[in-house]
Amino acid sequence: MAAIENPFYTHEHHGDYEEISIGRLDLEEGGSIPDCHLAVTTFGTLSEAKDNVILVVTWYSGTHQIFREQYIGENHALDPSRYFIVVINQIGNGLSTAPHNASGVNAELAMSAFPKVRIGDDVVAQERLLREHFGIDHLQLVVGGSMGAQQTYEWAVRFPDKVLRAAPIAGTAQNTDHDFLYVRTLMEAITSDPGFRDGEYSSNDEVQVGLERHARMWGVMGFSTEFWKQGVYQGLGFDDMDAFLAGFLQPYFTVRDPDDLLAMMWKWQRGDVARHTGGDLGAALARITAKTFVIPIDEDMFFPPRDCSFEQNMVKGSELRVVNDVLGHLGLFAVNPDYMPQIDRHLRDLLRTPVG
Amino acid sequence: MAAIENPFYTHEHHGDYEEISIGRLDLEEGGSIPDCHLAVTTFGTLSEAKDNVILVVTWYSGTHQIFREQYIGENHALDPSRYFIVVINQIGNGLSTAPHNASGVNAELAMSAFPKVRIGDDVVAQERLLREHFGIDHLQLVVGGSMGAQQTYEWAVRFPDKVLRAAPIAGTAQNTDHDFLYVRTLMEAITSDPGFRDGEYSSNDEVQVGLERHARMWGVMGFSTEFWKQGVYQGLGFDDMDAFLAGFLQPYFTVRDPDDLLAMMWKWQRGDVARHTGGDLGAALARITAKTFVIPIDEDMFFPPRDCSFEQNMVKGSELRVVNDVLGHLGLFAVNPDYMPQIDRHLRDLLRTPVG
Repeated sequence: MAAIENPFYTHEHHGDYEEISIGRLDLEEGGSIPDCHLAVTTFGTLSEAKDNVILVVTWYSGTHQIFREQYIGENHALDPSRYFIVVINQIGNGLSTAPHNASGVNAELAMSAFPKVRIGDDVVAQERLLREHFGIDHLQLVVGGSMGAQQTYEWAVRFPDKVLRAAPIAGTAQNTDHDFLYVRTLMEAITSDPGFRDGEYSSNDEVQVGLERHARMWGVMGFSTEFWKQGVYQGLGFDDMDAFLAGFLQPYFTVRDPDDLLAMMWKWQRGDVARHTGGDLGAALARITAKTFVIPIDEDMFFPPRDCSFEQNMVKGSELRVVNDVLGHLGLFAVNPDYMPQIDRHLRDLLRTPVG
Repeated sequence: MAAIENPFYTHEHHGDYEEISIGRLDLEEGGSIPDCHLAVTTFGTLSEAKDNVILVVTWYSGTHQIFREQYIGENHALDPSRYFIVVINQIGNGLSTAPHNASGVNAELAMSAFPKVRIGDDVVAQERLLREHFGIDHLQLVVGGSMGAQQTYEWAVRFPDKVLRAAPIAGTAQNTDHDFLYVRTLMEAITSDPGFRDGEYSSNDEVQVGLERHARMWGVMGFSTEFWKQGVYQGLGFDDMDAFLAGFLQPYFTVRDPDDLLAMMWKWQRGDVARHTGGDLGAALARITAKTFVIPIDEDMFFPPRDCSFEQNMVKGSELRVVNDVLGHLGLFAVNPDYMPQIDRHLRDLLRTPVG
């Protein structure tokens, strides 16, 4: 019932970041986080007019670190010499307030007692942080992949006057039923491990069996059938698929906190901008005034391009920009050298597009 | 360690069928089945020249019954007024010799002691049965879906002189790595259930949790993303996706025997005609002299058409006939009214094609 230590969620693994309190956050599902902290990292300099801001939001299991390492730099569209780039870690990701780290005034929310948090809660928290902490009212761009795409859409629908451009990558505004089912099997891989003890383990190590099973299910859906057929993992330095799973995908997940992952998965399952419009997805997407590039990955097995283009067709003035990557959904990791050039090209085109 | 009763594997649920012994079957992986029984059902009349035979082979978890109910009839290509149609249940499926029913002289093979059986073992057993029991030497057609496609390819490669036509539906000659990984997650869904007790449960009911988890994973990969998006299950009489899972997919699997399913899955993972040619898939497929129609289902998520056409390109004189079905792989169940007309058209075209 008390918060636990996990060395993964530290500066050692995540470099510089700041934990910023936004105070009490009341939640859509009821209850509240007494003192919600968001882990934030910034790149570049905020202009005096505060008109050069890009917000980057994080995906399931991810943190700001992948953006620092792969997406942000003077050689990228997310260029800190031109923009003030703010990466905000989602609630539950383990750097921001999350089940495993809930302590102090949040102690009653630790572990299995953590409340249900929705995508909308994240976006409300992010907006408050940007406004109160940085004085930021307008965003040149909101961008994120997967659950980050869910947050991007939520921003564009909830705060249309604040979002000038939006780039949801490999994700949807309304989570699909298929995705809901997929995520449930991922959750069950963890919760079925006796070591999980209904969320009251004392270390993620006790849930290693479940976390590894969960990782192997990512192996089935996270990449593409062609990724495995072509043996792409060999180019990444692994002799065979089991070496790749054991050396890459399993350790990626086993260091993470099970309750944190489950909090994010519950949220992922329910991402839906149509909550603003009584279930009418078209009406919700019609609220978007941001110039929007919808960016699916062609081989994505659970956010396939047709699901993304279905929504893109409902966003006024939007464009569909399909990224080609045999890695499928986990192309987001940017390990394919052809991936970032495509992302950069689309984001540069978007940032060059006049708005307003 | 002893065989157990399971009321699903009876005439009550499977109508008429005959259990035919082929005697001792030595296995590719070593060991043998002392008295291998194959459950067989036939339709139509064997011609005097024994030249009107169609062999139908079964898929994972399937039996002859789905063919009786959906595929075979005077209104279908598999027409018992013209052909003598023999459906042979695969080893391990629970009607043929399988872990849960191994008794008598097979008693030492019961439950977790069941030996590893390969696709090649099935085909050797089937060939012996057809030859010794029926005096059949030539097959107008071998047809099967999924693991039945694996057996179909194995027949065409192993016994090219006996197979005049072949129709592998929704399956491959060499199982893909992706498929191997998918099947492993299915296996883990069952074996991770504490009630499984390393295969030594006393009733499938004790493994219900694992069998249901396994069923839900079929829900993710067995249909297509569009199946769920379009709510196709509503047309099948279910209000929502959980009702469909609880009313259809979960009970489909929970009545079955876990060890039997695992024996089939181990076999499925390793289907590979290139075992005949030192790993050279092209050389193996080049042995096929049967007129072959390769029949993938367009929305199949784990035997996608491109994997099937990759192999089809290596079979001389073959044709690719893609079936359109939003149900994806489980289109095989023939619940979509548009499915069987496509299958029948392709099989009629194939049966009309002169050979030899």
